[in-house]
Amino acid sequence: MGNGGMPRISVLRLGHRIERDKRITSHLGLTARAFGADEIILSGDRDHSPLETWESVTKRFGGNFRSRFEESPMSWLRNASKSSSNTIVHLTMYGEHWRKSIKSISFEKPIIIVVGGTKVSGEIYGLADHNISIGNQPHSEVAALAIFLESCLGPIDEYSKFPEPKLRVIPSTNGKIVINEEEEE
Amino acid sequence: MGNGGMPRISVLRLGHRIERDKRITSHLGLTARAFGADEIILSGDRDHSPLETWESVTKRFGGNFRSRFEESPMSWLRNASKSSSNTIVHLTMYGEHWRKSIKSISFEKPIIIVVGGTKVSGEIYGLADHNISIGNQPHSEVAALAIFLESCLGPIDEYSKFPEPKLRVIPSTNGKIVINEEEEE
Repeated sequence: MGNGGMPRISVLRLGHRIERDKRITSHLGLTARAFGADEIILSGDRDHSPLETWESVTKRFGGNFRSRFEESPMSWLRNASKSSSNTIVHLTMYGEHWRKSIKSISFEKPIIIVVGGTKVSGEIYGLADHNISIGNQPHSEVAALAIFLESCLGPIDEYSKFPEPKLRVIPSTNGKIVINEEEEE
Repeated sequence: MGNGGMPRISVLRLGHRIERDKRITSHLGLTARAFGADEIILSGDRDHSPLETWESVTKRFGGNFRSRFEESPMSWLRNASKSSSNTIVHLTMYGEHWRKSIKSISFEKPIIIVVGGTKVSGEIYGLADHNISIGNQPHSEVAALAIFLESCLGPIDEYSKFPEPKLRVIPSTNGKIVINEEEEE
């Protein structure tokens, strides 16, 4: 995935609710970024808070992760579906099991991963190229997105994916080591 | 993992905050259950809501997932650490990378997975046998737990792990299929 140009992996968060979903949506975007997506598109209630969190983390921890609000996610998705220039993957507990279906997903085209919030319109199942479950038990869209990205993309090289960080965490067996790159200069 | 007897995999959620963390904590427990943990132990603010969610999901979707509130998580963890009859794994963005360290974790003994909420006491790093990061980028404890369990346990056989469900989701390529086992009888 290039860091410039068109995003190769986008996550569309449907039906965000400003009170109830604030932190789940915020975690969803951070998970998208950490596991290699290029952007998240927020829809539902207009809410600056998750967008600010994502921008702030990207500014501090590096990389080019993008985020924006989409007023008309269904029109946007219908267009994306019509154009056939994307692969649309809908994550849903009702879908086919990812272990079975992940191999059939084409990564030739940019991927849009649709993650529902509140009840998802039945239309999505038809617009999506793949309706995929991360197990058929109820759990979390955050967990589902993490496992899906991790299964598709595998290890992210954090040094190349997140260039020019201000803060860099150094893995440690027994404590916190954080390097502030700005202070070092 | 047996479904009866002592839990083999427990998740300890530290520092739950009743307002801010309600849904994240709820998702964390559902993720623990869906990916094969046997119980979750809640600590921090006393809050019935996530416990009720977990019980309700287990009742509807089957299995023997347990949950309880722990008043003194640090004492409990110190005892667990002293007894050496458990392996304590602390998930933290500051820890060693899971791909590197997961092979060194002993699954001979029951595992306690510690998941922080608000700022975690430095003592935890010493009590844990392993401080493990799911990448060193900020993301979500829900994502971290999902990837960790999935990496350790691999595929869960939902039919045997979650016996006697009332509701059963049948994987589908383009819609929702839910069987209500009670209605069928």
